[in-house]
Amino acid sequence: MEKPGKALASVQTQVPLVHNITNFVVMNFTANALLAVGASPVMAHAVEEVEEMVAIAGALVVNIGTLAPQWVEGMKLAMKKAVELGKPIILDPVGAGATSYRNQVLTELLETASPSIIRGNASEILALAGSNIKTKGVDSTASSADSLEAARELSKKYGSVVSVSGATDVIVSGSDVAFVDNGVPLMTRITGMGCSASAIAGAFAAANQDAFVAAIGAAATMGVCGEIAYEKAQLPGSFQTFFLDALAEINDEKLNQLAKIRQ
Amino acid sequence: MEKPGKALASVQTQVPLVHNITNFVVMNFTANALLAVGASPVMAHAVEEVEEMVAIAGALVVNIGTLAPQWVEGMKLAMKKAVELGKPIILDPVGAGATSYRNQVLTELLETASPSIIRGNASEILALAGSNIKTKGVDSTASSADSLEAARELSKKYGSVVSVSGATDVIVSGSDVAFVDNGVPLMTRITGMGCSASAIAGAFAAANQDAFVAAIGAAATMGVCGEIAYEKAQLPGSFQTFFLDALAEINDEKLNQLAKIRQ
Amino acid sequence: MEKPGKALASVQTQVPLVHNITNFVVMNFTANALLAVGASPVMAHAVEEVEEMVAIAGALVVNIGTLAPQWVEGMKLAMKKAVELGKPIILDPVGAGATSYRNQVLTELLETASPSIIRGNASEILALAGSNIKTKGVDSTASSADSLEAARELSKKYGSVVSVSGATDVIVSGSDVAFVDNGVPLMTRITGMGCSASAIAGAFAAANQDAFVAAIGAAATMGVCGEIAYEKAQLPGSFQTFFLDALAEINDEKLNQLAKIRQ
Repeated sequence: MEKPGKALASVQTQVPLVHNITNFVVMNFTANALLAVGASPVMAHAVEEVEEMVAIAGALVVNIGTLAPQWVEGMKLAMKKAVELGKPIILDPVGAGATSYRNQVLTELLETASPSIIRGNASEILALAGSNIKTKGVDSTASSADSLEAARELSKKYGSVVSVSGATDVIVSGSDVAFVDNGVPLMTRITGMGCSASAIAGAFAAANQDAFVAAIGAAATMGVCGEIAYEKAQLPGSFQTFFLDALAEINDEKLNQLAKIRQ
Repeated sequence: MEKPGKALASVQTQVPLVHNITNFVVMNFTANALLAVGASPVMAHAVEEVEEMVAIAGALVVNIGTLAPQWVEGMKLAMKKAVELGKPIILDPVGAGATSYRNQVLTELLETASPSIIRGNASEILALAGSNIKTKGVDSTASSADSLEAARELSKKYGSVVSVSGATDVIVSGSDVAFVDNGVPLMTRITGMGCSASAIAGAFAAANQDAFVAAIGAAATMGVCGEIAYEKAQLPGSFQTFFLDALAEINDEKLNQLAKIRQ
Repeated sequence: MEKPGKALASVQTQVPLVHNITNFVVMNFTANALLAVGASPVMAHAVEEVEEMVAIAGALVVNIGTLAPQWVEGMKLAMKKAVELGKPIILDPVGAGATSYRNQVLTELLETASPSIIRGNASEILALAGSNIKTKGVDSTASSADSLEAARELSKKYGSVVSVSGATDVIVSGSDVAFVDNGVPLMTRITGMGCSASAIAGAFAAANQDAFVAAIGAAATMGVCGEIAYEKAQLPGSFQTFFLDALAEINDEKLNQLAKIRQ
């Protein structure tokens, strides 16, 4: 397994523009996470401009956290354009399984385009694969290990890399699988950590051809920065601050040293 | 007067899902405050999904901070469903009195359903009760003491617990009244403190049958955590961080020890 | 050149209400920045209420960061009302040049009303003046020095003060120009810094008749507080926190002492 430092260095060298159509709750944190890690974020959702925005971006991140019909139109247009231009799409199925509207929109989005990377928590990945698990709002009620089969299924069905966040992150690409053992439980107590993982996966996919490598690099970066932040603060307000600091300080060498990736 | 620790312990044990239809400014802070205190937040506003979301939630928080017609439709649908399912509704009348549109929407919402708890600042509660006071945007120009009569009136009219935030929080339930003397003035210099008080009231109402007990517990938790944060930082950026930390550290024992509740 | 402390003192004495129609990414940070510096923020965008809101505000800040048609209607109505009532308008052309929709909306907004202050980064100001420079999303690819001619042109065309943020801020009012040498590069790595500069320009314009004085005062306050924060933290998460702290601590004396303004 290649070490993830090189993928991070590509992000930091290229400073890719990442186009996010994401939810209201996490826009600020996500933008700051992208800036900290060395990418350039832009948020734009209107049908009037998403196609042009995706055309100047290196990747498109679609996140359904606070869904509404007008936004879905923008997502679809942007995804079509991304496919046309060969730009990677990252889909974050926030709250999949929580309501039938979310499930229906996810079906429509996945019919519109196959994402390069689908990143979610275990409940979301299970719901997306058609399991009958009930998501509790947007927080996971399943472990990432539970979702390995579901991730494999999704990966085959859509040709996507599927990245499942959890105590151990599970990343599946067809018949390949990688496990990332970094991160701390406190990360589940801060809103937008999963959404930021998706946004950062967008930065990695923009700067690295191989989506599997990108997804692993992004998951390792998130987890390692979580560990660095946790050394400084064990409470969520301070942790959040130090997490952004860690994203700004991480480099290829440190990431290679601290990443715990198994295959 | 029962001590508020038990109500907090119920939140922390049950980890209730709180469905928020709230404003853009505070969504991130509110979600983090709910996670920190031990609840699970979800934000969803589309008419397509609010009914299903409220059905899996323990409480519904409606906050009119950044109002628009489509959102009002979602609020009404969610409120109707909450009534049908017997879930507590918390209404935060942000900026009541500032524009006639806000006043009109509040009238419509209050015709749709009687909230379990109405939580606002003194200006908002006075405006809601039909006083001619002019709200300055979303910040209060009156003291909570001024609003006691207005709170009583509202409580009788809607059968709601009315919680007025201020130097002293005033909580009215019919003919009962409680005063919470916790908190620090710096809390008025951080956006979303009032909105978080409403969201946390939602968590308490989800986990505690008695809305009066829930509103008092939430107000005491906010105030006590404000005091704990203020010991660490007297400036708003740092204070905000330590406030979230305090919410994550507070427990029933500490809350009972520090809460200053009078009746 | 008058020192900027007096303009800041006016803000802190008057506590002006600043009406923001701004983007989702920065609403929280902007509101906190306004509160910290001593102003009172309100965010409201619906056509149903913007006219009444601008009527009780001291200034209107229009920011096109996350644009959509319904919002543009609210912006236009609010701008017309502001003109009618003689309230200063601050326009932040976020991402000007990135998409044709943004350019078209900016043309429409500038036909609706002449802003008192236009504040943007160099790429945005160049794009607004009709240069063929291509904006990279919302981050600048040009230096503020490059934009001096464009700023002069815009200032003459619209009768606006034009404030260009950069390593050196360039502020143009007709044939007058001022340079502010405060600030640190890290400010470009935190989302919403530019948007907050615009919001704070709104607070200064609300409390000071002369828009040139207001724009210089706001730019100096931002830059000086950036320097103060940077002494405490060199990483973006912590920096952000200390920046808000600095805004809450700055006073006229300290600002006069640290501001580096040339003409």
